Amino acid sequence: MRARALGFAPGIFAPGPLNAITDVAGIRVGQVTVMEGEATRTGVTAILPHVGNPFADRVPAGLFAMNGYGKMAGVTQVQELGELETPILLTNTLAVGRAVEALVDWTLAQPGNEAVRSVNAVVGETNDGRLNDIRARGVTHQHMLDALAAAAEGPVAEGCVGAGTGTMAFGWKGGIGTSSRLLPTALGGWMVGVLVQANYGGALVMDGLSVGRHLKKYYLAEHAAEQADADGSVMVVVATDAPLSDRNLQRLARRAMGGIARTGAAFSDGSGDYALAFATHEAVRRGPGRGATLDWPNERMSPLFVAAAEATEEAVLNALTMATTVESRLGGRRLVGRALPLDQVSALRRT
Amino acid sequence: MRARALGFAPGIFAPGPLNAITDVAGIRVGQVTVMEGEATRTGVTAILPHVGNPFADRVPAGLFAMNGYGKMAGVTQVQELGELETPILLTNTLAVGRAVEALVDWTLAQPGNEAVRSVNAVVGETNDGRLNDIRARGVTHQHMLDALAAAAEGPVAEGCVGAGTGTMAFGWKGGIGTSSRLLPTALGGWMVGVLVQANYGGALVMDGLSVGRHLKKYYLAEHAAEQADADGSVMVVVATDAPLSDRNLQRLARRAMGGIARTGAAFSDGSGDYALAFATHEAVRRGPGRGATLDWPNERMSPLFVAAAEATEEAVLNALTMATTVESRLGGRRLVGRALPLDQVSALRRT
Amino acid sequence: MRARALGFAPGIFAPGPLNAITDVAGIRVGQVTVMEGEATRTGVTAILPHVGNPFADRVPAGLFAMNGYGKMAGVTQVQELGELETPILLTNTLAVGRAVEALVDWTLAQPGNEAVRSVNAVVGETNDGRLNDIRARGVTHQHMLDALAAAAEGPVAEGCVGAGTGTMAFGWKGGIGTSSRLLPTALGGWMVGVLVQANYGGALVMDGLSVGRHLKKYYLAEHAAEQADADGSVMVVVATDAPLSDRNLQRLARRAMGGIARTGAAFSDGSGDYALAFATHEAVRRGPGRGATLDWPNERMSPLFVAAAEATEEAVLNALTMATTVESRLGGRRLVGRALPLDQVSALRRT
Amino acid sequence: MRARALGFAPGIFAPGPLNAITDVAGIRVGQVTVMEGEATRTGVTAILPHVGNPFADRVPAGLFAMNGYGKMAGVTQVQELGELETPILLTNTLAVGRAVEALVDWTLAQPGNEAVRSVNAVVGETNDGRLNDIRARGVTHQHMLDALAAAAEGPVAEGCVGAGTGTMAFGWKGGIGTSSRLLPTALGGWMVGVLVQANYGGALVMDGLSVGRHLKKYYLAEHAAEQADADGSVMVVVATDAPLSDRNLQRLARRAMGGIARTGAAFSDGSGDYALAFATHEAVRRGPGRGATLDWPNERMSPLFVAAAEATEEAVLNALTMATTVESRLGGRRLVGRALPLDQVSALRRT
Repeated sequence: MRARALGFAPGIFAPGPLNAITDVAGIRVGQVTVMEGEATRTGVTAILPHVGNPFADRVPAGLFAMNGYGKMAGVTQVQELGELETPILLTNTLAVGRAVEALVDWTLAQPGNEAVRSVNAVVGETNDGRLNDIRARGVTHQHMLDALAAAAEGPVAEGCVGAGTGTMAFGWKGGIGTSSRLLPTALGGWMVGVLVQANYGGALVMDGLSVGRHLKKYYLAEHAAEQADADGSVMVVVATDAPLSDRNLQRLARRAMGGIARTGAAFSDGSGDYALAFATHEAVRRGPGRGATLDWPNERMSPLFVAAAEATEEAVLNALTMATTVESRLGGRRLVGRALPLDQVSALRRT
Repeated sequence: MRARALGFAPGIFAPGPLNAITDVAGIRVGQVTVMEGEATRTGVTAILPHVGNPFADRVPAGLFAMNGYGKMAGVTQVQELGELETPILLTNTLAVGRAVEALVDWTLAQPGNEAVRSVNAVVGETNDGRLNDIRARGVTHQHMLDALAAAAEGPVAEGCVGAGTGTMAFGWKGGIGTSSRLLPTALGGWMVGVLVQANYGGALVMDGLSVGRHLKKYYLAEHAAEQADADGSVMVVVATDAPLSDRNLQRLARRAMGGIARTGAAFSDGSGDYALAFATHEAVRRGPGRGATLDWPNERMSPLFVAAAEATEEAVLNALTMATTVESRLGGRRLVGRALPLDQVSALRRT
Repeated sequence: MRARALGFAPGIFAPGPLNAITDVAGIRVGQVTVMEGEATRTGVTAILPHVGNPFADRVPAGLFAMNGYGKMAGVTQVQELGELETPILLTNTLAVGRAVEALVDWTLAQPGNEAVRSVNAVVGETNDGRLNDIRARGVTHQHMLDALAAAAEGPVAEGCVGAGTGTMAFGWKGGIGTSSRLLPTALGGWMVGVLVQANYGGALVMDGLSVGRHLKKYYLAEHAAEQADADGSVMVVVATDAPLSDRNLQRLARRAMGGIARTGAAFSDGSGDYALAFATHEAVRRGPGRGATLDWPNERMSPLFVAAAEATEEAVLNALTMATTVESRLGGRRLVGRALPLDQVSALRRT
Repeated sequence: MRARALGFAPGIFAPGPLNAITDVAGIRVGQVTVMEGEATRTGVTAILPHVGNPFADRVPAGLFAMNGYGKMAGVTQVQELGELETPILLTNTLAVGRAVEALVDWTLAQPGNEAVRSVNAVVGETNDGRLNDIRARGVTHQHMLDALAAAAEGPVAEGCVGAGTGTMAFGWKGGIGTSSRLLPTALGGWMVGVLVQANYGGALVMDGLSVGRHLKKYYLAEHAAEQADADGSVMVVVATDAPLSDRNLQRLARRAMGGIARTGAAFSDGSGDYALAFATHEAVRRGPGRGATLDWPNERMSPLFVAAAEATEEAVLNALTMATTVESRLGGRRLVGRALPLDQVSALRRT
């Protein structure tokens, strides 16, 4: 079940029709889940900003690292030029190299890119090594290309899928989650969509409800049996159809981390917590023959900021409530990523 | 009443004996409240890092601007050198110039500073112009010096005092708040203290309880009568006795913003949201004859990160629960900053 | 004499008609020189971006601190919002507070600003304490206002004037310098103007000629008699009429530091080396009723980058060649800031 | 011939015995040159910080992107934690993915790393596509491992070798260059070593001599025949045996860009210009069981800053003077990277 069906509807704005990042028109998501043998529990999630060639038809983008303990690729060029020129791939920590390689191959092979000699591949990751035999390198170059090829508009699979297959969050099974917000017309009528790869920790809070504390599972709990690791990372991708330029997208990315904070994140030393935001509006796209683009006024940003934070918060809740228990066997040990006990959560909600 | 007495005790760690920034040994706070005539409702709050000469005996420091729409002074030198060489003054937006002037005067006049020719004054501010006739420039150079002279260890006055005299938060009267956390011995036994100047908005959440939504007063509420401005800013000062160097203090400052997020902050365009963290431990102090200092290991930071976030959250709650209603008359209009209705909040808590 | 008259014409582009920052249409510069008594050798230089109200009609801006050991005011808001809302004042290190105060007063008093309650004053400084009795605080609030009132288009006074009155550079008398570059029509036809407050050191290089080494006066020279202090700081202000937005202005500011490097800068620990760039084009101005502005394509920036670096280099040379010897008497000691010996420099050039 | 043999000895400090990055004790460099068929002209250069396991025995590090148009990997973790945990690989733009992959493989395979599940691979690149068929992806995973295996102390090959095989600089053949500076005992006696991968442009200046202008080959020359592309990038690696922590290494990295500026760099839009600095001193190494490390005083940094800039400048000159003419045939066109004409340069020097 999604969080909203359980009664968790954080924030003040209504979601879009799918309550997913794909509510932003043109955005496509493709996922490959890699569950093989006893210990490979991993995958890849691809996000394409629009139906065209992302290299020729660039979208402005901004990035924020709340805690930069991570291996995200493509960072400095996004910061310097304020734009994306490839799709975004999310995967596990040790697969970033092959994800970059795959994005380069994919970009060189796009029609119209025959003369391209420089590609800034953007890849995010979290460490799924608590459930996945990450050293076995289960995600392949082909899985990356398959995720890109599978990208589609419409509903987005959540929970133990794609780059969320082996992730944990707050001591329970984490995963991929998504959500969106539609601003009222008076506030611009823009859509903001979010997708998260949730693999972090702290003390889980669901729309104000201290689930982690009540269920006695949280980071730094006094009794070892209750402790939940806070490391691992979270990747947040924020998309909007508002005509924002890079600086205001960077600001939007910072607000997404406010949503992560509200879920009870510890922002621990070992958690790489990143948000990447981009805008799809025609008037801000860049590329050959486009010339100058728009720079949106600062003073119209606040409702978008609020929307980004609350969609991020709900996307994390969806990652948790949609995840199911995953097991693996690694080095002779049985590892279990237990799903959040929705019955207990519902009971808590009613008290 | 302080928030904890009302039953709001965010987080997992216990506070220090005073539940104040002054639980960090040696830290002194001095405040001057300026309420004059019909419309001057402002003031200044001074924080001194230790009992010595802050210029000769510098403390490492780190800074984070979640939203840099503010006039904070002394920023680039703190970032470049990673240290504080003056006390910190908090005041209103239009008084930053005279606060800098006063800190320079004060520093030049300290015994031992006879040859000093360069002073990096650190001043934070929020805009109390919703209640205060800020254009009248009610805070004077002398008020700044008085606040520095008044600095003392021990309990810290909260609510409508010092730099919080005229501030608003979440549509109610804001102010100065403070809190602390003492890490268990097994996690280092360090103290983390926080002081906030709360003048921002969003939809107030008190340790998970959606007070703003329930009391129908929040930013972007559908009905104009319920709307509360989200602009104005928040300044967070974090202190610790752990021997941290500047980079890890900068990371600590980022976590303070996680605490602000949990109170329901909108992080709106017009709110300058800053955190400044410093460490008082002898082994990290800098200055003539001191030589190399310590750089604390990253992997021991996580409990401190958690402590900073939850002390920040509670400091904001204290700013609100300790504030009392303040009125002024400006341009013929009666302005009211109403105190948070603690009875209604308590009633909400019990339901 | 200006550097170009001495044969130093760094770079590949031609200057504008005045070879000054005021070649960018509408820019006005005002300076007040404060030489009083035996030891006051200081001043203030004001730069106004256009003839209108800078608060209502904001210009985009970007900033770079090559070495942030300085007291520059207004930094975080320029970075966050990407814009200037006041004139820029340059003065000495200990006068920043009163410069902020004066800019606030000036802004509040502008017609149309009656409701303004927040002002981000932008002030740069260098430390003229090698010649000036900086602790005596010779620059007053009125001097700041006078500089703003004196602002005019046309030629700009250089050398020992305004904020350059007491500065030193490379062991010789420094000062204010300015220069400009006009891009050929094929490269856009834009104007780039620069003004510097030169008070730094290293080993002076004039368009490739190692003047510091040849004249045996440079930082870290083996013999104490030849040593020249490298600390003190440099402020660079870059203006252009190209329709650039803030990110590309921040990039332009970084290139100005390339020009500083070519003059032989040591970029020493104690030198605060800053560049601030802004654009005056109507299509990028911001303010009430203006809506979205332009964001200029990255791929058209390179010629502007080259122009900014070479105009900066020449502005420094002008600061040195236009400066005259200045003396003061401080604490019983005679201090001399000797002018660069132009005859020796010319002789060197011919060998 | 190296630049110094031609009479170019920029700066005031003497080089170390090898005038190479390997003058910093323990540093090893390994290079693989890949020249195959008609059009593969590329390679890889590996830099190992010490003889131990770089993951277990981490060195502090700091990074600066003068222009972040590049694909450098591992950036945010270096910034967040202030340390390196792998060797550094330099290669071409489209080979970054496989370089990351190789560094991960290499790290997982080191003795003692059996439990490692997270690796932050640091890879720099420039675009050698002017001479190399970069789309053919000539550098393989095995080449990366071979470069790591070939790493040795002692003299470093320069010019058309390793990651410099196909690079161009200022319109001539570029390549790998190295240099070092030994501070006098009175200034600490520290060694600073630099290695560059030079593939950028502007108007070449050799220790003040305007070679590009005189030889009529430079970026934005008025006549198309004289124009030299300025894009392509430069990677600078700075190493020192001084016990610096990350912030001061980041500052050191910034100064390296001063050296690049003095060579006549345009810092064009399309040039990714990065410096990465690390320190090898035992007292600043990090890892299991090491605890707190040293943080070096800011006020002792200036001589190191000067050394880093001049070693960088000379390393670039060595890259150019040591490079030889390289040809390739791509898409039916003959491409020539002509060596800098040393006879003409020497003649210029004498006039």
